[in-house]
Amino acid sequence: MLRLGLPVIGVTDVPRAVAFWTAALGLVARAERASGTWRTLEHADGSGALAVMRSESPVEPHPRVHLDLFTDTAEEQQAEVRRLIGLGAQAVDWDSYPADPDFVVLADPDGNRFCVIDLGHTPGDGDRPEL
Amino acid sequence: MLRLGLPVIGVTDVPRAVAFWTAALGLVARAERASGTWRTLEHADGSGALAVMRSESPVEPHPRVHLDLFTDTAEEQQAEVRRLIGLGAQAVDWDSYPADPDFVVLADPDGNRFCVIDLGHTPGDGDRPEL
Repeated sequence: MLRLGLPVIGVTDVPRAVAFWTAALGLVARAERASGTWRTLEHADGSGALAVMRSESPVEPHPRVHLDLFTDTAEEQQAEVRRLIGLGAQAVDWDSYPADPDFVVLADPDGNRFCVIDLGHTPGDGDRPEL
Repeated sequence: MLRLGLPVIGVTDVPRAVAFWTAALGLVARAERASGTWRTLEHADGSGALAVMRSESPVEPHPRVHLDLFTDTAEEQQAEVRRLIGLGAQAVDWDSYPADPDFVVLADPDGNRFCVIDLGHTPGDGDRPEL
């Protein structure tokens, strides 16, 4: 049976990406053979969450595929954005915010852009990003 | 608490992408306000799986971020690749396969490349793609 496996994030520095994404999301890196080029990051229950893979592709300013990370309130969203920047995420001067967005665009230490969403945002006050 | 939300796939044709990805992975599209530009695709239990979003970004031949879909055997992998192509996926003349890959690269109807993995592949026989 075909199933959704993992989103895979391409990076130039696998150990740095492992450090960032495990701290960001409370994940654990699985011990792996080709750990210099590929690491699977798991939830505490052993289920797969995310993979990071060495990639030579350039960073995409408006990526076709990206990750949304979830928070429940605007306060939590702001606190998590600050925490992620403390972990090495980059603030992004996003050029396409609507008037009252429910999302904040950040980039991981490798420059991969992702969104931090406030799921409690009042519908109608903003729209999802059009990357 | 910050958590991994959804991978978001950028497409030019949202209804086509909804049709493809729901059929590919047995998902259901959530009824949504801005359904012309954004659809969340859920598992049968209501948990989020994937989102598709209108995007004007060009397709990336070697994307930084991509999805891995899982199968358990080589036979299942081959059958699912055929099924996905029947649903509108595109075969990809991938230029970076190792000698004995555990993955097949396809593209969704919008051109977004993803991998179909055989989790039963014998370790050491191949390596994950370096996109």
